[in-house]
Formats: sequence, structure tokens, C-alpha cells
Amino acid sequence: MSKRLGILISGRGSNFLAIADAVAQHRLDAEIAVVISNHPDAPGIAVGRERGFQAITLPSKGLDREAYDCQMIEELRKSNVDLVCLAGYMRILSGHFIREFHQRILNIHPSLLPAFPGLDAQHQALDHGAKFSGCTVHFVEEGLDSGPIISQAVVPVLEDDTAESLAARILKEEHRIYPEAIALVLSGQYRIEGRRVIPFRKIFA
Amino acid sequence: MSKRLGILISGRGSNFLAIADAVAQHRLDAEIAVVISNHPDAPGIAVGRERGFQAITLPSKGLDREAYDCQMIEELRKSNVDLVCLAGYMRILSGHFIREFHQRILNIHPSLLPAFPGLDAQHQALDHGAKFSGCTVHFVEEGLDSGPIISQAVVPVLEDDTAESLAARILKEEHRIYPEAIALVLSGQYRIEGRRVIPFRKIFA
Repeated sequence: MSKRLGILISGRGSNFLAIADAVAQHRLDAEIAVVISNHPDAPGIAVGRERGFQAITLPSKGLDREAYDCQMIEELRKSNVDLVCLAGYMRILSGHFIREFHQRILNIHPSLLPAFPGLDAQHQALDHGAKFSGCTVHFVEEGLDSGPIISQAVVPVLEDDTAESLAARILKEEHRIYPEAIALVLSGQYRIEGRRVIPFRKIFA
Repeated sequence: MSKRLGILISGRGSNFLAIADAVAQHRLDAEIAVVISNHPDAPGIAVGRERGFQAITLPSKGLDREAYDCQMIEELRKSNVDLVCLAGYMRILSGHFIREFHQRILNIHPSLLPAFPGLDAQHQALDHGAKFSGCTVHFVEEGLDSGPIISQAVVPVLEDDTAESLAARILKEEHRIYPEAIALVLSGQYRIEGRRVIPFRKIFA
């Protein structure tokens, strides 16, 4: 039986749609069980519903982090989620949430971590004068953008880049490596040594 | 007239030899005016002399950083050096030295800065589980491995890499990009905007 994904978004969720495409095209053997947004008007929710997914909003207003995350955990449990994929989810997860889904939460970040963690990573890379940047899929641990790295991709930073043109170039790679990284994790065909994620064999052709 | 390079080493100075090769093969229009090591027995000094360069040792024993750097500045001045290239030079430069050769000191570091500054960068990359690493040529400013980036190159980190095999893969790229970066800086055909080094045109084919 296919493993069940819970995808958390805050905006358009372009990585959610890339994952959905990979599932639809049988490049990724998984089922999107639920898509949840903390923003009621996240464009990704409307698109998700159009495409027939269970897509719900869970507004965080008035709730503290722990209380909110308890609601989120409940929703994910209701949908029997095996793996949680953050796709532009703009809230810090509580330690409680992270322990509840230990090594079953993935995030994608638009830089070659550990360079440029946090917000506006593309802008950071440009301002720093980096000649290359990229994106990173990693396990989520307590600590910002700090968990073991599953996959990375590199793009050049061009002389006439703006943060927007660089972000677009990186996003293309995000859409490619995120489904691949999910496939690897769902397959269980890897081991973790310290911080190193080492695949047993190539899963995703 | 060719610009004059002063190269500082502490060990075998493989990047010094890569620069010397680029000069000999007319890929880099420059003259190596002097090679200086702080270690009396740096293998790069013997090799440098064999190849006919002025190669001297300047032992640092018993001298504080400022006093030592004053001697170093004097040696570089005597040789009419236009640009100082650090090639595995394992001493921190004093602020006095850095101000004396403002934006005329280059260093090469075996990582994609700002990731993995400091010692054992290849080991750091491996332990961090990075999927890509590389090397960076940058201007030297006060602050460790922090000046504007002139050039970078990327290499993959392979599953069976040791720090040594990764270092060897990176070193190959170091030998390629360091002479290119020196050529760009000597040409003056670039501008610096904030931290970004932007070439006017491609100098090095």
C-alpha cells in the first residue's frame, strides 16, 4: 500500500504541486492524504481542492504554538499520515510536534545549507556574493534548518540575477529533488550516520 | 609590464605551484616575485627554489603577530608585490597587514563559503552531511574567511568519500580557479558592490 503524505503549506505550495505531479505521473509511489495550511487564504488550498485533494485550513489565530501544533498533529493522525512534508510552511514547529513525528518530517530550503538558513535565503545568497546556491531537502529537527541533509541541488548565481530570478532557478531544482528525496525516505533504503544520510541504492531514476 | 605576485605558504603550497604553472603556460600574465613561508621546512620552498623562484622563509618564532607581519610587509615591499596570494598560509593576518594591502590579498578556502569556514573545511562538510562542497577564492578582510567572493567551484560529496578523497577532488578545482581569479583581479576588470564581485567581462578563457 502506498505511504501517506501530509503536506503543510502557507502559500501557493508550489512544492506541494510538484509532489502531486510526481505522484500522478507514478514517479513517486505515495498518496497525498491531506494538505493543511495555517493561512485560510493560501492559494495552494484552492488549487489542491480543484485537483481533488483533501485540503484544509487550520487558522492559528489566538493559539499558542503548542496548542496549535496539537490540533495539527490530530489532523495528521486522522489522515493516517506516514510522512510530513513542509512545502513553504512558514511556522516554526514545536518540539512536541517534532518529537511526535521523529525523523518523519521533511523540509525543503532554498539554499545549500548550512549556508543561508532562515528567511530570504535567495536574497542572502545574492547579497553575500555567492557564485553558487541551490536547495536542500532535510529532516526537520529542533533548531532552524538544521536536520540531516537528504538531498541538495546546485545552481549558479548569475551576474544579473535578482533575488526573484535566482529564486526561480532554485525553485525548478526544488521541484525536481523534493519528490526524489521523499521517495528515498519512504523507501527506507538509507541509513543515518551522525548527520550523514547515506542511501543504500539509487531509488528514483 | 606583468604584475608581481607575492605568495605566502606554510606547507607544500600546491596552489603556489598551480599559479606557477599558469604563469609558465601563459594562462596568467603575472610574475611570481617572491614566495614566503612562515615554516622553515615548508616543502613548497624547496620546490620553489628548484623552479628558480625567489623563495624565502621568515620564521615567526618569538615574534608577536604585528611584529611578524611588519617583517612580512617589508619583504613583500622589497619585492614590489602588487598582489598577495595566500596558498595554504596557516597564520591569521593582522589588521595592520590587511590594511597595508587593502583589497590586494587573496585567499583560497576549501569550501563553498560561507559554509564551513575555518580549519578542516573538508572534514566539516563531510560530517555535516553536505551533498556538495567546493572551494572559494575571496579577498581577505579582517574576519575569518569573510571577504568578498571572487570565484567558487562546486564538487559533489560522494557516499564513500573520506576527508582525504573529498579534499583531493576539491584541490583539483582550487588549482583551476585560483589562477583564473588572480587573472581577473590583476586585470582590474571588475567592480565590487557590497560583497558582490562582478566581472566586467570574461578574462580567462
